[in-house]
Amino acid sequence: MRSRIKAVEDAFRNEFDGYLVVNPINILYFTELVGAADSLGSAMLLIPGGEESTLHIHGVNYEWAKTEAKNCSVQLVKRGEDLVDLITEKIREMKLMKVGFDKMDFQTQQKVSKGLKRRAQLEAKADYVWDLRSVKDGGEVDRIQRAAQLTTEGMQTAQDTIKAGLREFEVAAEIEYKMRSHGSYGVAFDTSVASGLCSAFPHGGCSEKKLQTGDAVVVDIGAKYKNYCADMTRTFVVGRPSAKQEKIYNIVKEAQENAFQKIMEGAKTKDVDAAARRVIAKAGLGEFFVHGLGHGIGLEVHEQPSLNSTSKAVLKAGNVVTDEPGVYLVGYGGVRIEDTVLVKRSKGQRLTEGLKFLKKS
Amino acid sequence: MRSRIKAVEDAFRNEFDGYLVVNPINILYFTELVGAADSLGSAMLLIPGGEESTLHIHGVNYEWAKTEAKNCSVQLVKRGEDLVDLITEKIREMKLMKVGFDKMDFQTQQKVSKGLKRRAQLEAKADYVWDLRSVKDGGEVDRIQRAAQLTTEGMQTAQDTIKAGLREFEVAAEIEYKMRSHGSYGVAFDTSVASGLCSAFPHGGCSEKKLQTGDAVVVDIGAKYKNYCADMTRTFVVGRPSAKQEKIYNIVKEAQENAFQKIMEGAKTKDVDAAARRVIAKAGLGEFFVHGLGHGIGLEVHEQPSLNSTSKAVLKAGNVVTDEPGVYLVGYGGVRIEDTVLVKRSKGQRLTEGLKFLKKS
Repeated sequence: MRSRIKAVEDAFRNEFDGYLVVNPINILYFTELVGAADSLGSAMLLIPGGEESTLHIHGVNYEWAKTEAKNCSVQLVKRGEDLVDLITEKIREMKLMKVGFDKMDFQTQQKVSKGLKRRAQLEAKADYVWDLRSVKDGGEVDRIQRAAQLTTEGMQTAQDTIKAGLREFEVAAEIEYKMRSHGSYGVAFDTSVASGLCSAFPHGGCSEKKLQTGDAVVVDIGAKYKNYCADMTRTFVVGRPSAKQEKIYNIVKEAQENAFQKIMEGAKTKDVDAAARRVIAKAGLGEFFVHGLGHGIGLEVHEQPSLNSTSKAVLKAGNVVTDEPGVYLVGYGGVRIEDTVLVKRSKGQRLTEGLKFLKKS
Repeated sequence: MRSRIKAVEDAFRNEFDGYLVVNPINILYFTELVGAADSLGSAMLLIPGGEESTLHIHGVNYEWAKTEAKNCSVQLVKRGEDLVDLITEKIREMKLMKVGFDKMDFQTQQKVSKGLKRRAQLEAKADYVWDLRSVKDGGEVDRIQRAAQLTTEGMQTAQDTIKAGLREFEVAAEIEYKMRSHGSYGVAFDTSVASGLCSAFPHGGCSEKKLQTGDAVVVDIGAKYKNYCADMTRTFVVGRPSAKQEKIYNIVKEAQENAFQKIMEGAKTKDVDAAARRVIAKAGLGEFFVHGLGHGIGLEVHEQPSLNSTSKAVLKAGNVVTDEPGVYLVGYGGVRIEDTVLVKRSKGQRLTEGLKFLKKS
């Protein structure tokens, strides 16, 4: 299989003679390192078309990267040395004339530009990387699938655990323990167990609040496996759901299923979004579905493609996306149902699934 | 007490007539929102000196922010509206002429500049915010202290759990469960349980590897409480430590204590770093202490001030920093000992502490 570095070289060849990767997650992607992007610290990967790529990294991570990084050589940034100086020196030395980059903050861009002294042109262009990252290869799908299985197990624990009197974080503790002890590498994002009025906030969080009978509880969780994320939401009710809760729930469920049926290669993401939105609007609740339908997921929880009403993206086989409509009634409560879905040639495949959600006995 | 927004206004007044906060963690800081920075999505906080500050935020977070954000008004970015357009419009409308900002990626900066059409000058200057954030107020110290207590409890669990045959992630599961079920809001960073040869990598991670008798196990963990982080490392040995392990351990312990004695208001951080480095160098292991001594900690795990040999920072009362020397012998193993320390007038106060580390019965 062509390495990811080779793939991006093939992509940028007509436009650039080198490419600088600065975003730590992108560095993990190209070097296939398994670890926390945060702990990478500042590092840069220079990909000069046709020649060996070099990862420039500080001492704290040097030995690890030297042992584990694939498809590149690893060079130590010594104490007192400046990463940007080293990179600009290298670009000049290799006589690269036009260098693309993925993402840089303004100050860093200014510093690199200054260091290049107009001997090379520097241009922001992240599309190459996003195009690659959004279509998952087999190894990536396997990892997301494992993360999704662990997430589904965590959701089962949520269903088993939720009862009146428990605090939101106590439910989170049980969910996370299940996922972690079964092999998760950590959470893909802060676990959300949002009950009662907080369930009406899409990112309702998880506090010290006690669950009360009658509360809707929106549980939004994701395990991580070897850097890859899954994302799943179910809505439970503490005790017996009211007729109104049941009604809203069934609308959201129908919306989620309707969108799911549209997920396949070639579908416009705005049409997938519309398939869910139509169901909710028809029920007179359109204004309470306050976010897009979903997002790509992989090394990060939020990746391309976006599934919303203004997106121009078209689904490709190998995309992994979320399908997560919701209805949020401020002052009352909310419902969201979400699965992580693999896009295939003629259909979607739910990677998180199942559970007789909503009903709590 | 003066609000944080008022404090930064007082700081920038002579240089700017407005300040734009883009970094999500800084937005949490100024608005005192408790929640995940990731889930904030794109949002911007405009602080025009003397007038009301406005937080511009998308629908998915609007109701939450409106209910919870302090010291500002909250404005909805509607679907199809462009955040940057709204902000530049607002800057022009308020006739702000010189606007500072904390952090922006290059592309966003270009877009804002273009939107301002030279009617206002835009300048990167994050120091104001970092100066404020690095000195913690009473409420912040309380939260870090709570996070540190939970972290110490987690480390006790590590000590109780570690034994030959367990996998690294299984130890992590027990640690995280203890912290979470006792009230932690999640982990401040990916839990590290790095055993055997991996203990020689400072960010050794946590894998499916089984602990073996004789392994050094570097456990680096942090609980989070209401957005605030703690950070603690202890090194254990599975079974009975060898004479060499014990010797290295005692050197690192002495280095950590020596640096700790220097921590107080007015100390140069490079001197604190040197106090640890001297002990390790004297033992002939200087080249194996491959990172700086520590870093500030608060809303993020890595904040200012930095404690290393090239830092120019001077400690202030109210800084919270880590003291974490280590020795890493590639092909053999590593030792690190770390505490989170509050800087006071004439001393440091360990917020994580205790444990008869190293020895496993």
